[in-house]
Amino acid sequence: MEIIEFTPDRNQLAYTFGGRPPILTVRPGDALKLWSEDAFNHALKSVDDLSSAKVDLRFVNPQTGPFYVAGAEPGDTLAIHIAELTPARSWGVSAAIPFFGGLTSTDRTATLQDALPDTTWIYHVDSARQTVGFQARFGDFEVALPLEPMLGTIGVAPPAGEVRSSLVPERFGGNMDSPDVKAGTTVYLGVNVEGALFSIGDGHYRQGEGEACGTAVEGAMNSTIIVDLIKGGAPHWPRLETDTHWMAVGSSRPMEDSWRIAQVEMVRWFEELFDLHQMDAYQLLTQTAQAPIANAVDANYSVVVKAAKSYFPRQHAYDGLHATMRDRATRL
Amino acid sequence: MEIIEFTPDRNQLAYTFGGRPPILTVRPGDALKLWSEDAFNHALKSVDDLSSAKVDLRFVNPQTGPFYVAGAEPGDTLAIHIAELTPARSWGVSAAIPFFGGLTSTDRTATLQDALPDTTWIYHVDSARQTVGFQARFGDFEVALPLEPMLGTIGVAPPAGEVRSSLVPERFGGNMDSPDVKAGTTVYLGVNVEGALFSIGDGHYRQGEGEACGTAVEGAMNSTIIVDLIKGGAPHWPRLETDTHWMAVGSSRPMEDSWRIAQVEMVRWFEELFDLHQMDAYQLLTQTAQAPIANAVDANYSVVVKAAKSYFPRQHAYDGLHATMRDRATRL
Amino acid sequence: MEIIEFTPDRNQLAYTFGGRPPILTVRPGDALKLWSEDAFNHALKSVDDLSSAKVDLRFVNPQTGPFYVAGAEPGDTLAIHIAELTPARSWGVSAAIPFFGGLTSTDRTATLQDALPDTTWIYHVDSARQTVGFQARFGDFEVALPLEPMLGTIGVAPPAGEVRSSLVPERFGGNMDSPDVKAGTTVYLGVNVEGALFSIGDGHYRQGEGEACGTAVEGAMNSTIIVDLIKGGAPHWPRLETDTHWMAVGSSRPMEDSWRIAQVEMVRWFEELFDLHQMDAYQLLTQTAQAPIANAVDANYSVVVKAAKSYFPRQHAYDGLHATMRDRATRL
Amino acid sequence: MEIIEFTPDRNQLAYTFGGRPPILTVRPGDALKLWSEDAFNHALKSVDDLSSAKVDLRFVNPQTGPFYVAGAEPGDTLAIHIAELTPARSWGVSAAIPFFGGLTSTDRTATLQDALPDTTWIYHVDSARQTVGFQARFGDFEVALPLEPMLGTIGVAPPAGEVRSSLVPERFGGNMDSPDVKAGTTVYLGVNVEGALFSIGDGHYRQGEGEACGTAVEGAMNSTIIVDLIKGGAPHWPRLETDTHWMAVGSSRPMEDSWRIAQVEMVRWFEELFDLHQMDAYQLLTQTAQAPIANAVDANYSVVVKAAKSYFPRQHAYDGLHATMRDRATRL
Repeated sequence: MEIIEFTPDRNQLAYTFGGRPPILTVRPGDALKLWSEDAFNHALKSVDDLSSAKVDLRFVNPQTGPFYVAGAEPGDTLAIHIAELTPARSWGVSAAIPFFGGLTSTDRTATLQDALPDTTWIYHVDSARQTVGFQARFGDFEVALPLEPMLGTIGVAPPAGEVRSSLVPERFGGNMDSPDVKAGTTVYLGVNVEGALFSIGDGHYRQGEGEACGTAVEGAMNSTIIVDLIKGGAPHWPRLETDTHWMAVGSSRPMEDSWRIAQVEMVRWFEELFDLHQMDAYQLLTQTAQAPIANAVDANYSVVVKAAKSYFPRQHAYDGLHATMRDRATRL
Repeated sequence: MEIIEFTPDRNQLAYTFGGRPPILTVRPGDALKLWSEDAFNHALKSVDDLSSAKVDLRFVNPQTGPFYVAGAEPGDTLAIHIAELTPARSWGVSAAIPFFGGLTSTDRTATLQDALPDTTWIYHVDSARQTVGFQARFGDFEVALPLEPMLGTIGVAPPAGEVRSSLVPERFGGNMDSPDVKAGTTVYLGVNVEGALFSIGDGHYRQGEGEACGTAVEGAMNSTIIVDLIKGGAPHWPRLETDTHWMAVGSSRPMEDSWRIAQVEMVRWFEELFDLHQMDAYQLLTQTAQAPIANAVDANYSVVVKAAKSYFPRQHAYDGLHATMRDRATRL
Repeated sequence: MEIIEFTPDRNQLAYTFGGRPPILTVRPGDALKLWSEDAFNHALKSVDDLSSAKVDLRFVNPQTGPFYVAGAEPGDTLAIHIAELTPARSWGVSAAIPFFGGLTSTDRTATLQDALPDTTWIYHVDSARQTVGFQARFGDFEVALPLEPMLGTIGVAPPAGEVRSSLVPERFGGNMDSPDVKAGTTVYLGVNVEGALFSIGDGHYRQGEGEACGTAVEGAMNSTIIVDLIKGGAPHWPRLETDTHWMAVGSSRPMEDSWRIAQVEMVRWFEELFDLHQMDAYQLLTQTAQAPIANAVDANYSVVVKAAKSYFPRQHAYDGLHATMRDRATRL
Repeated sequence: MEIIEFTPDRNQLAYTFGGRPPILTVRPGDALKLWSEDAFNHALKSVDDLSSAKVDLRFVNPQTGPFYVAGAEPGDTLAIHIAELTPARSWGVSAAIPFFGGLTSTDRTATLQDALPDTTWIYHVDSARQTVGFQARFGDFEVALPLEPMLGTIGVAPPAGEVRSSLVPERFGGNMDSPDVKAGTTVYLGVNVEGALFSIGDGHYRQGEGEACGTAVEGAMNSTIIVDLIKGGAPHWPRLETDTHWMAVGSSRPMEDSWRIAQVEMVRWFEELFDLHQMDAYQLLTQTAQAPIANAVDANYSVVVKAAKSYFPRQHAYDGLHATMRDRATRL
């Protein structure tokens, strides 16, 4: 197994899923050590940098990739195991961008009201204590929060020739902003084009569920991932697996549709895992699922539906691929 | 502190919030041991009892109450601490009611499609192992799931003379179907009418987040609760507190509005708890909140936004009332 | 046929559907001349009366009624023909109430933004020219708009013991705010309780579709209506009929659900009218329906789906009741 | 003024907005006579051709274009006047595609129910009587409906490098499916890329509002259009103008957001047209707007908000460009 290290030049950054030639070809089984720029494209470096002045919304969520996976064909399942996520800077940044976020009107939920105050927060990373520090901008309150790195964005090229902004979560993955996309998680994505053309980015040093104000503790990230390929079997929507949970992510609007999508995908997965009738899978998940909102702020809202493995008989999805990749991750 | 025991006769059951005279008067500080009927009104007793034949939808979610709280006036805050929840029967029941639930069209999300098969599941309670047993209806699959009792419904009379079905979650609480309404939780509800007129019901032996098929493991319940009253300070929407979390529940449609409501209520609470500016509370919760969907199936969808106390400096909401009630609960 | 005149005293006004004893009993066939107060309960009389200071939101949309219809039983169809609507005052009033309306955040679509400026507009009625005069509040612009009286609110008592605010549109009718509820229209409502207990109110001197700011040109109204009763045959949702159109009104959230409800109700009606298979009715309406939004601002959003009679073979819904009532209206 | 005639070869058809090189360059002022294929790509020719068997969903809504407009730059306003629309075939076709449409569950509003029956309807065009003939598929009912040709799809390339399926309505126009896009209408679209790169397609011989089943009376179309360019002044969302109305189209989810978008865009337009304060424009439109749903079935739902010119003082949007183009259209 090769370990490929890659840090994009500024002009190599991608801002879309699809529409870009691959930056590198990788083979199933390869491990990658990747650097990604922060979601604001390094435009906010202090609390005095306001998003309205500094952030160019055409160039946000810069992606590292796309990577061409040798042998990947439409209908296949791309498996990406996240082995390790480490902040690549000593600080992260969050911002309340005017008319962007969950508790403000937006270009979609359009009202005639004024914007909330454009505000930037800087979080200092304490590597020893593994925290990021919140400091109030309108008072003296301070608190150190656990560092919990995750990737806001991971996805493949869309089908049907579409090219989507890296701000969009969809069937192809993308900007799902799920805190469950963290070290130890395997992400399964349906392949839509030859080579899959996946990319990652939008590292978060931590994020609450919903990502209420629209931006997490955004930061440049060093990611170690392992790539693998399952021939055929593409899930309808992204699936996640950890040592403890099976999950599916739905991304649409309104939010109940995101939930419906993820819940139906989990019903399908449970039918497969336990050879259940649809109605029994529906019932069993009704009594056991967790359903955290991942984001309530992006172009589509994302909901995760997850099932704790501990409740159920042991089953190995995809022939135990997650456990295999997890094992390899520990030996990198 | 008095302990009042009450088991309603069948003709004492209430099916609405509001619109009913109180069944009993209690004083702040009283503890109550209450029995409640299951959500189907005991109409489904075997897998051969189908909801279309047996369940009268005008008489579901029967409530135990309403109770008049001496001294409660509009604008006050009713605090109900759930001390203990114990199944009152040796079995629970769930059903996929035609055109009711999350993965079917409904009277609201109306389509021209046929209903899913009307199906009933019976779960046996194993008190020793503290489990409920799932048995597939269309196969042999069986699994014992942890018993995790909760109350689907807890609420007060609505304002403005409204009377709402006990199927409705709203600003007054009601059918929120949140798994966080369990033993150890204090529920804070704004009082709308003299005496508050609260009731409880819809006991669940367990339920997943979202309550996907529309019904949990429904069962008659023995509930021990402690009632208290805070003069003034009514929250806009229901708040919950446990030893580990502060929470708010929003119930509306579409689901993003439920989330917005709960997230704004938590911003308000954080402003109070930590003397924060609104923008700082918004930011801080963005990075720390959890946001589980409670129900995606009722007349309104319910979303819980919660904050883990362990992340923050110690603060005592409502002068530490939760801790006080929790303490009293252990001594009942 | 009797003509009953009724003007409620202030203390006779109702603010709910359901929950009130009848104010009068009428018989099928009776004509009623009714006076109704404006939606603000006469609290705004000049542009200097601001809603935040003067309007008590517990006492808005005052209803004239409820009327007990002799012989009406659950499952019957109440037919109310609107014979004539005439402004009862020489001026109407509209207001942008803080955090109420379509282009502002609300208690449901909750954000952290400031409210829009609380503003009141007075419209003078020119009876000779049949216009209402708009005058800009922040400039000199003036324009006379056609007087087009309609009833914002018409409904019956809800089922299952519910009592709903007169601000709510629902299956029982209520605050649908449809410009199609005007002179010449017959409204068909399913009866939920003995006597139906219908009421009317919320007269609008004119209103655009959507009622964007939340309030129409609100005014006291003189309404002449004829009441009739069809035994059985209750529609699932309100239906309207004019000389030119068949219509159904759906009221829910999100707005696509309101549309789905109304569209399905029209499919049902077309199956009945033309003895069509469901799929053919679906197709035929797809190519012919109109679908104006009635309100985008109330507790539920209302959408009307309508079909122009001129496109189709002549059919007499409810044995031609609309034509009969229309004819009687001309002879009052 | 040149008249350019263009009929694409099958391999020249485009299935996206953006992502394709221009097929032709036109100059502001040019008139174009264009042929477009039907939405099903000519795959359904009889009632026995079912969409599940014959339609390849990657190749639907084929576009004629894109056309490069000389001089068009981002921020400009493209004006396309529709001079004439004439059916290019003697029959049109509609279909209820499984899991597509408004009264069925879909890939987004996902449920576990079975699909509605896959059904195709053929409509014969009677050019003399200017009708299309509906024939029931499950009975004998027949009716001739007025021929009212419109374009389901008209749009420009999206911004930010995105490429969107021709099934999508958005800020860039696209698959809005508005019956108001017909002969006599001028469509104003903001330009996002050099040359604008507009295309048209998805001709409908007639369509009801909402396009309930998901497909109109689809047919190949001969379209005569005039293209013009306004430097700068790009509207946020598509605007339409006829001799009688000003309109804006919003396309998003949930449907209330589509309405909010269109209503806000009309407020902006009224501020410009009549030099009104935002609050006065909001109020004036509240009492005068029409708000038909265009589609309730596409990737985004589209709502049109329109204002009748007859209510207002005469104003010439864009220096009277619509009237000028309308006049030129009569002289082609």
